[in-house]
Amino acid sequence: MAKKALSFNPKHFAKLNILKCIGCGHETTLLEERKFVCPDCGDLYDVVHPQTPLLSNHGKCFVPGSQNWYDSKGSSVWAFRDLVLPGVPTENIVSLGEKLHIVPVAGALRNWVGGDLDLWMALEGVSPTGSFKDFGMTVLATVAKLAEVSGIACASTGDTSAAAAAYAAAAGLPCVVLLPKGKVTPSQLVQPLAHGARVLQVPGDFDACMRILQELVSHHGVYPANSLNPARIEGHQATVFNSWLQFGKTLPDWFVLPLGNGSNTSSIGKGITSLIERGEVSGNKTRILSVQPEHSAPLAESFEKAGGLLRFSSGTAVDEQAWHDAYAPVQSGHTIATAAKIGSPVSWKKVIREIVNHCGGVISASDKWALEAMFAAGRSGHMVCPQTGLALAGLRNCVKNGQISSGSRVVVVSTAHGLKFANDFLPQDGNDVGETLLEATTSVAAKVLRL
Amino acid sequence: MAKKALSFNPKHFAKLNILKCIGCGHETTLLEERKFVCPDCGDLYDVVHPQTPLLSNHGKCFVPGSQNWYDSKGSSVWAFRDLVLPGVPTENIVSLGEKLHIVPVAGALRNWVGGDLDLWMALEGVSPTGSFKDFGMTVLATVAKLAEVSGIACASTGDTSAAAAAYAAAAGLPCVVLLPKGKVTPSQLVQPLAHGARVLQVPGDFDACMRILQELVSHHGVYPANSLNPARIEGHQATVFNSWLQFGKTLPDWFVLPLGNGSNTSSIGKGITSLIERGEVSGNKTRILSVQPEHSAPLAESFEKAGGLLRFSSGTAVDEQAWHDAYAPVQSGHTIATAAKIGSPVSWKKVIREIVNHCGGVISASDKWALEAMFAAGRSGHMVCPQTGLALAGLRNCVKNGQISSGSRVVVVSTAHGLKFANDFLPQDGNDVGETLLEATTSVAAKVLRL
Repeated sequence: MAKKALSFNPKHFAKLNILKCIGCGHETTLLEERKFVCPDCGDLYDVVHPQTPLLSNHGKCFVPGSQNWYDSKGSSVWAFRDLVLPGVPTENIVSLGEKLHIVPVAGALRNWVGGDLDLWMALEGVSPTGSFKDFGMTVLATVAKLAEVSGIACASTGDTSAAAAAYAAAAGLPCVVLLPKGKVTPSQLVQPLAHGARVLQVPGDFDACMRILQELVSHHGVYPANSLNPARIEGHQATVFNSWLQFGKTLPDWFVLPLGNGSNTSSIGKGITSLIERGEVSGNKTRILSVQPEHSAPLAESFEKAGGLLRFSSGTAVDEQAWHDAYAPVQSGHTIATAAKIGSPVSWKKVIREIVNHCGGVISASDKWALEAMFAAGRSGHMVCPQTGLALAGLRNCVKNGQISSGSRVVVVSTAHGLKFANDFLPQDGNDVGETLLEATTSVAAKVLRL
Repeated sequence: MAKKALSFNPKHFAKLNILKCIGCGHETTLLEERKFVCPDCGDLYDVVHPQTPLLSNHGKCFVPGSQNWYDSKGSSVWAFRDLVLPGVPTENIVSLGEKLHIVPVAGALRNWVGGDLDLWMALEGVSPTGSFKDFGMTVLATVAKLAEVSGIACASTGDTSAAAAAYAAAAGLPCVVLLPKGKVTPSQLVQPLAHGARVLQVPGDFDACMRILQELVSHHGVYPANSLNPARIEGHQATVFNSWLQFGKTLPDWFVLPLGNGSNTSSIGKGITSLIERGEVSGNKTRILSVQPEHSAPLAESFEKAGGLLRFSSGTAVDEQAWHDAYAPVQSGHTIATAAKIGSPVSWKKVIREIVNHCGGVISASDKWALEAMFAAGRSGHMVCPQTGLALAGLRNCVKNGQISSGSRVVVVSTAHGLKFANDFLPQDGNDVGETLLEATTSVAAKVLRL
């Protein structure tokens, strides 16, 4: 191995990683962009990589910080560096060794879902900060450091702030988490605090936080870590790329995942397309099922209005224009899937594009079934978040309705560890957990246990 | 690949996996043992594997549930099946895809530790249930299923009950968690409940729980998942085996870890010995540093009394008999490292044996420094538990004292994710987290952030 590492070449990097508006096609430079909204039409950006990269080295993983890290034991994102962020030298990568655990699902959960599926879960909560955000944040932090920003900022009470804080720390960059005063619980703050982020409570609502965030970005060189930033989308594609590698360079029949702001659905679609365009998979056979909470389902409702469900059942794609026309934000109602409680998803246009491209569907599921799915997963050994429960409940519905057929290979994206949503597993009154034995005798215990 | 899987051969398995008393050498059968205490002398058992296994396949991982799982992406325990539990067919393995994340440590934490070390952490909290127990419990659950037990039981409020419940679920076996009534918080119960374990609160103290546990074991065929059970020790060796593979088939200079009941220190020592005996590493150069809380340090105190510290500083081993003679249980005082608050470690004899064998040391560290270590780790992107903080604090002391020299390659075992100990990261009053901006203006925010 050559001792002299490649040094970073900004001009070369700029050619390999271009920001392109999804609306009007306006192009700009990844390392110089801060607002991530097209100045011409107001739409979002994609990161596009015009030069088709070579795939020969894939599966041979990135070696963070050491020449001794052996193949396939580094980051599951940077194992696919050429597809994610080509042109970045190893020494410039900010990684916490985030690995994808894609495991077969058996027992109680597989039975609960039904349909005799070849069922897998991508356990993205088994990760440094406990959620799928890590797989995107490693790319965002790498770009932020290359862009020589003065810090990273976000307005979030959940997984995004945890991941932003951890990866900013790994990058040696200060991190700011902006929150509306009086609406935050200690458990939402513990991860930013643990990672040394500066947590600021802003009098006012989330709009006031966003206003300060945008001004910090415009006037103080702070880098935004919110959903607009397409660097994160690049990293989340790792779910697709690692599934492909795991299944002997084929893709599963279905990816099933929860839908909040839509960045993850955007990433799954983009990753599938990327492999198809590069000739790594033949044909476009992999479909996407995204699931929203029933009382916060703007994309599921408009999908249905546009005739999507009928098309979905027959295996064809919804009409993109009809869906666009039917789409409208909603006022979110209560759901245990708080991370998916988003009435106006930032990435709604990208979601529509990818669901159309991959002949997918967006449906909703109830809290009742999401909770049942969480306990079914637990009885198979996996402790998953309510959002994952939602995805599993949606999958079960589609199996029952015959939309997903017996024997299909399905990868469900588990977006966070259940430990981050521990209260959902406790009895409603919060106190009376466990049973009390009248007498501490073995025979009573055995009877209770039906031994 | 042959289609017909090997079927389980109990006689062959029994020859490959023998229980041997560490005191008198009494031997018994792994699959028939339930009490895990030698009937002749009352000592603990080791699992010994008399037939030297072939190592040719190591690094080529076990493929749980699928022929398509590619090399090195399965379980980090079963990648070393021949060293852990030879003779078990793939189909009989109970795994949740537990992987070891051994990552380089840089930035704030490396600076805090000092000594310009080649510093790594085995992030064993980035695992299915969030603690290192998973790496042992996958072996215990596999043995339990082979032994055709009627269920798994333990008395634990912490990581053991979580892992036992998850792996029992994965095995399709009922799990019982016995707890003293009135001394349990909801957060300690959430994982057993999520995994469908039967949680029983027993009137009385932990001794009453242990009495019921032993009777369930003796009379009802229940399998104990507590620290006595040496099957867990076999799996925890994965830390050593995976380090060896990661560092190009060499071992680090040091393993550093917290010490509670002593099973992990026992495993690290056993794993090193196993590689030496098989000729996979030359010489016995890898040392162990185990760290106890300062007010619960029976092994550190007796190590010092036996002249261990002087020997440790000069790079030689403490006298085993002197240490045995000096050892006495203690009454534990307060510590944030609750999982290591054990005044009478079950595996104390194994700890002494392995520390002596590997020229190691046992020291203590304070809560103050453990907490500082946790925040230093956080500022490097890793959220670790108080026990890991203890290990890091002990390492820092040894670097300062010159006992661990500059440039050494050190692997610190991070035993659980900080999310399981979230309260330790919050300010003492528990409420006033974050700062409140007087005015929600950008300039105030920038000033607070020193931008």
